[in-house]
Amino acid sequence: MKRISLNTENHVSEILIGETRLNISNYIPDGKVVIITDDNVGKLYGNEFPPFPVLSFKPGEESKNLKTIEFLAEGVLRSGLDRKGFIIGIGGGVVCDIAGFLASVYMRGINFGFVSSTLLSQVDASVGGKNGVNIGLVKNAIGSFNQPEFVICDISMLNSLPEDEYYSGLAELIKMGIILDNGLLDEIEKNREAILKRDNSILEYLVTRSVMLKAKIVTEDERESGRRMILNFGHTFGHVIETSGNQKHGFAVASGMVIAAGISELEGALGKTDVKSIINLLKSFNLIKKYDIPP
Amino acid sequence: MKRISLNTENHVSEILIGETRLNISNYIPDGKVVIITDDNVGKLYGNEFPPFPVLSFKPGEESKNLKTIEFLAEGVLRSGLDRKGFIIGIGGGVVCDIAGFLASVYMRGINFGFVSSTLLSQVDASVGGKNGVNIGLVKNAIGSFNQPEFVICDISMLNSLPEDEYYSGLAELIKMGIILDNGLLDEIEKNREAILKRDNSILEYLVTRSVMLKAKIVTEDERESGRRMILNFGHTFGHVIETSGNQKHGFAVASGMVIAAGISELEGALGKTDVKSIINLLKSFNLIKKYDIPP
Repeated sequence: MKRISLNTENHVSEILIGETRLNISNYIPDGKVVIITDDNVGKLYGNEFPPFPVLSFKPGEESKNLKTIEFLAEGVLRSGLDRKGFIIGIGGGVVCDIAGFLASVYMRGINFGFVSSTLLSQVDASVGGKNGVNIGLVKNAIGSFNQPEFVICDISMLNSLPEDEYYSGLAELIKMGIILDNGLLDEIEKNREAILKRDNSILEYLVTRSVMLKAKIVTEDERESGRRMILNFGHTFGHVIETSGNQKHGFAVASGMVIAAGISELEGALGKTDVKSIINLLKSFNLIKKYDIPP
Repeated sequence: MKRISLNTENHVSEILIGETRLNISNYIPDGKVVIITDDNVGKLYGNEFPPFPVLSFKPGEESKNLKTIEFLAEGVLRSGLDRKGFIIGIGGGVVCDIAGFLASVYMRGINFGFVSSTLLSQVDASVGGKNGVNIGLVKNAIGSFNQPEFVICDISMLNSLPEDEYYSGLAELIKMGIILDNGLLDEIEKNREAILKRDNSILEYLVTRSVMLKAKIVTEDERESGRRMILNFGHTFGHVIETSGNQKHGFAVASGMVIAAGISELEGALGKTDVKSIINLLKSFNLIKKYDIPP
């Protein structure tokens, strides 16, 4: 297990990579606790959850709205959580976004932690303290910056991911390599076979390397006023593709990166060979799908 | 006009007592702005608002919910506000609670300011950075601690308040006197006639004195972990009375203070004469109504 401390103003968040969900009780403070998850994760892992009330919602982006927040808040109130209560989110990016936002505003803010179950959320969504829900088609229109007490990145849970969900996370991992760490890209290329087989030790290594990169940037710029915006590489077009089609986040971001790389080449910021090798790497993991961009 | 600076971590909030709403443009930063108000305030003062898009909702506590937040967020998105946008809440406590919460979570938080139009909100709700909405009958179950850039307490707007709304604010003013400042209580007693006539200069004096008391406490304990809890005097039973009957906040708090004072007398924390003079003062402003407390 690797432990990475993420320091932001007045707060330390512990990212535990390779820790197992079964050890979660070691990280929960005394007092009342509620678990928030989605129906998929609940079905797969619910029988191993620690003995606290569980609130579950329909999986997927379409649950990321204020109606879900209201439904969950009612449930948390029924469980009697006060300001000293604690919320655990167990699941992928959507669960972490929703549970993190709920905890940030419930009783004007209580503490929370995550068990991150998807590659995308281990690499991206669960680290950095951005949470929120959508308003209509506008992603994360309502939300907050707020760090969890801990994030358990349980690598073994990645074995149960559907194919497209797993590849979607790989795209985000490749993005981190492109913008921040050529060495990470080399490792991804070199270990292609092991990655496709979901080898847990190479995945633990790659997630750790990616989280360290992200933690550094978030520590410097929690509220995304400067350097943190680099993490949005591929997301401008990616969000458009994701919203207008039915593509998973990572695939949309992969296509967005191809477009962004093309623009960077036109502007002279990236060389022709760099752009080609980015596209080839994304293609080697089958990350480029057909997409539409509305006018 | 009096200017009180409220300092909390990394932030200064300016409370401007006796400033007029007509000068609001002096305090608004460059960029896109949206005004949030309720239908009553919009009807009375809308023609004097600065030329920005206005979003208005039904007045009263029953609007303090996530549905209103969603409706307003949609409107603010339509107006094209980004992270550099600014929200102005113009109205009483409910408007400030809702507008402050929306601004705190819109795009993960944008800046905001208030024009506070009721005595209750000038004395209490608009100062201190507590905002939020209700979940079912649970008041402020969802919300945040977040300071506005400025609060304009326009004393002349108090002239247009309905009787019960005005008296409701007086109860909160008396509460501040009881818990923190006997001199304030003396001033309230001495100026009873002028207060009933809503004399603007005595009101400016009393609001200023009360805001200074509250600012001191909020500065010491923004997140209500210790000393700030003293401000909840009368609110434990008050909230029960307010929720179970149809009483305005101030009247419910007045009755709550009588109960709390009685308990303090039983426990020896308050003398018999103190309790009598509290009850007499509240009665002299007709603040004690019949109430029910459910078992």
